[in-house]
Amino acid sequence: MGNEHTVNKATNVTWHDGNISRSERFKALNATGATLWFTGLSASGKSTIACALEQVLVNRGVHCYRLDGDNIRMGLNKNLGFSAEDRAENIRRIGEVAKLFADSGCIALTSFISPYRADRDLCRTLHEQDQAGGIPFLEVFVDCPIEVCEERDPKGLYKKARAGQLKGFTGIDDPYEAPTKPELVLKPATMSVQDCVDACLELLAARGAIRS
Amino acid sequence: MGNEHTVNKATNVTWHDGNISRSERFKALNATGATLWFTGLSASGKSTIACALEQVLVNRGVHCYRLDGDNIRMGLNKNLGFSAEDRAENIRRIGEVAKLFADSGCIALTSFISPYRADRDLCRTLHEQDQAGGIPFLEVFVDCPIEVCEERDPKGLYKKARAGQLKGFTGIDDPYEAPTKPELVLKPATMSVQDCVDACLELLAARGAIRS
Repeated sequence: MGNEHTVNKATNVTWHDGNISRSERFKALNATGATLWFTGLSASGKSTIACALEQVLVNRGVHCYRLDGDNIRMGLNKNLGFSAEDRAENIRRIGEVAKLFADSGCIALTSFISPYRADRDLCRTLHEQDQAGGIPFLEVFVDCPIEVCEERDPKGLYKKARAGQLKGFTGIDDPYEAPTKPELVLKPATMSVQDCVDACLELLAARGAIRS
Repeated sequence: MGNEHTVNKATNVTWHDGNISRSERFKALNATGATLWFTGLSASGKSTIACALEQVLVNRGVHCYRLDGDNIRMGLNKNLGFSAEDRAENIRRIGEVAKLFADSGCIALTSFISPYRADRDLCRTLHEQDQAGGIPFLEVFVDCPIEVCEERDPKGLYKKARAGQLKGFTGIDDPYEAPTKPELVLKPATMSVQDCVDACLELLAARGAIRS
């Protein structure tokens, strides 16, 4: 009996030489990985929308994970500061990790100001020029007027920046470079959170990452 | 009709203030995250076992992802060299990323020599002392005699190290610090790949990460 059991197991399995391929993985998991890259000013609504979207997807049973300041700046990137070099490295690492999540069959949501076009474009390239075939990189511009962001100012950061207590604050004394060809533009000043989430779901469905 | 549709959607959803909690996530995904940290000499069998385990889990529909030299050294950690400082940072970043995967409801498999006890212990601490409650960190010692590893030598690295062409090679002129309390010891010199995979599956089941 012991031997039979061993034989049965052995004939059920053919070990691969290397990795299970991405397409085999996605098929077995009935999942398709992608990265949704939210970008926009501080207090524009990126995290609120990403949180709400994550909740909807996870409750549908879709593996989805949000990378944000809380779990990145306190962990992986806690050895980075706010110099130009460190800011670029911050975004690069986030892009690499998002790509790993997407490769695993998860929908990665990144929620960072990511103000510089070159940094975001690098992350796009990492995804789209991946050796094992491109991984969807969907840039979502959370386009909220700075006046609205500044009025919200939930953490008092704009106030501090205006008072000169915060240097290099995006939109005040550091530029925000808006995406030129984002896959999606959300306008939280005139759209509800639900509308924004629905637009993200439509985009994901259109790209085959979820069922519509 | 349009309004009803909107109303229905709205009443179906209560937006959280913050993240979906880990327990809510795991319940909704019917998944439990954990990190299986493989450690052992070069050519001990870490990657072969991790690959085979990944294949079994993914084919069962379990989200499982392997972090290894191919997808880490060429991506996230491509700006790290082999100085003592960079080696420690290499393992720290891998530990942080594995923790994110485990937090997402995925079973993370890490497949690195990770020769230093202090580096592995740091990764354990990152998992076990996570703010949102501990995440299982399961250290798997792939315990293969160096004579066997050196005879296999699939990449010719031991040969180069013996010839003095590779400096700081683990087991030759750099120490391998074996785990003192690993959750599992595998002996690939006397166990088949299937036996090793089965032992990992038993461990995961015993810790509630998968169904037995």
